[in-house]
Amino acid sequence: MNEHLLFNLVDLAGTFAFAISGATAARRCNLDLFGILVIAYVTACGGGIVRDACIGAIPPAGLADWRYLATAVIASFATIVAYRQVERLTYPVRLFDAMGLGLFAVYGAHKALLFTHNAEVAILLGMVTAIGGGLVRDVLLARVSIVLQKEIYASAAFLGAALAVWGERAGWPALWATWLPIVLCFALRFVSLRLGWNLPRFGRE
Amino acid sequence: MNEHLLFNLVDLAGTFAFAISGATAARRCNLDLFGILVIAYVTACGGGIVRDACIGAIPPAGLADWRYLATAVIASFATIVAYRQVERLTYPVRLFDAMGLGLFAVYGAHKALLFTHNAEVAILLGMVTAIGGGLVRDVLLARVSIVLQKEIYASAAFLGAALAVWGERAGWPALWATWLPIVLCFALRFVSLRLGWNLPRFGRE
Amino acid sequence: MNEHLLFNLVDLAGTFAFAISGATAARRCNLDLFGILVIAYVTACGGGIVRDACIGAIPPAGLADWRYLATAVIASFATIVAYRQVERLTYPVRLFDAMGLGLFAVYGAHKALLFTHNAEVAILLGMVTAIGGGLVRDVLLARVSIVLQKEIYASAAFLGAALAVWGERAGWPALWATWLPIVLCFALRFVSLRLGWNLPRFGRE
Repeated sequence: MNEHLLFNLVDLAGTFAFAISGATAARRCNLDLFGILVIAYVTACGGGIVRDACIGAIPPAGLADWRYLATAVIASFATIVAYRQVERLTYPVRLFDAMGLGLFAVYGAHKALLFTHNAEVAILLGMVTAIGGGLVRDVLLARVSIVLQKEIYASAAFLGAALAVWGERAGWPALWATWLPIVLCFALRFVSLRLGWNLPRFGRE
Repeated sequence: MNEHLLFNLVDLAGTFAFAISGATAARRCNLDLFGILVIAYVTACGGGIVRDACIGAIPPAGLADWRYLATAVIASFATIVAYRQVERLTYPVRLFDAMGLGLFAVYGAHKALLFTHNAEVAILLGMVTAIGGGLVRDVLLARVSIVLQKEIYASAAFLGAALAVWGERAGWPALWATWLPIVLCFALRFVSLRLGWNLPRFGRE
Repeated sequence: MNEHLLFNLVDLAGTFAFAISGATAARRCNLDLFGILVIAYVTACGGGIVRDACIGAIPPAGLADWRYLATAVIASFATIVAYRQVERLTYPVRLFDAMGLGLFAVYGAHKALLFTHNAEVAILLGMVTAIGGGLVRDVLLARVSIVLQKEIYASAAFLGAALAVWGERAGWPALWATWLPIVLCFALRFVSLRLGWNLPRFGRE
């Protein structure tokens, strides 16, 4: 029960951080109230909705569970009403974002494995859960996503999803199979952010 | 029967208006014949296809019903052959577009409610039905959608979808539960267009 | 068996060519290692994944079959390690791409027909299988797709998909119903490329 509560708390904190990143980006692009709400919501829930459509979990949890929508709405209004304060919250938002990244990757992989019994689908859709919302946000804002350009972000999601699938297949105890990949994904993302690590690029030699 | 006929007429008129808005936008971006057809078709049917994928209504009606494709093709050729005349049709096209907005929002919400029995899913997917095609059009044209930037468009779709779900849950007679939300959504959209109403923006203070 | 082997070879060669086109485009846009992998993979598999979501073939083959992912990874690393050599391979890559176009259109139409028994869905989703990956690639790179702007590309896919559905409905022998549309689509694409054929445009008179 306590573990379940912790899981839900991290889930909502991550959703909130994702929604904040969407809402601030939408506000910077001068979208209107509705545009901010849409971008906040798809950033938070877009990845999970694509995952659920791909595994046949109908209707998608991101649409059906009111708590995600409510979290996105609260994040949007916080960004509108208290933009300066939200901007100053960079540090906790990044912290929650990294926590959300880990949890989304692991939970997405777990759910996909449950529905399809296929490790490759589970790892790919774990990553989609974690980074899909960010990609949809940038597609709607008509720009190439930072996720594809630099930083250790998707790679951390890959680590989390792959480790979760491996642990589940290897029969680790549920507590370990859930939290170890989340913590490692979080740690990799957070350390790489602090130290400014990036993946290599090859575009212009 | 008469009511059903009216519903179908409004449905096709709305599809036609959506397709015209896609085809003219595609032509302005200098796309070729095929590009115009694609943009017209996804503007008209894209929202409904996403909705059907999310509720498991397989295959999506926008793909399976030849009348939608035929309407999009006719709208495309009208835009190609008689561009000046179509441009002059701004007023009726906006009228049909507003009618389509109302009908798509209400019908989308109704169908989602039928498949998922979840009011939140129904309202969200009613909005997706009404505005999703326009979003996909602008994503393919690599620009930030006007739907996210200003005007009372998505908000009107929200009103229609929410009212349709409320009416259905409250046991209104079918005629009222269908047409009252359509007419109110249409009226809000049309009045706001005439009076130049916009949602607030917060981007650059 | 021999026919099946040939089909698989053309399938993987086409996937490879699609992935190369994605990886080179991503590298030119200066994406990082992960961005190149994502763009290569969605270019190769994106169309098929959308098709499978629309017909309820869950989980999508592009996610579940490791050979597609492996092909995309190999194409990505080839593009990174040997970019100059890959650039010089324009001719074989275009050849494979045209072969992939034909095969994807025909196979996509065939699979959709099997799942939905609807000729229109089959033709549309055959085209989606063939050109969807390219559209998603260009959406993620925030640009209007060349597929919508010129060249006989989607039109060739339409020819292949329509002919495949027609042949299947008319009861042609399986060998003919499969390979004749593939070869004709390939031939139309390849000849039009060599002769510089384009569809008409109407944007700026």
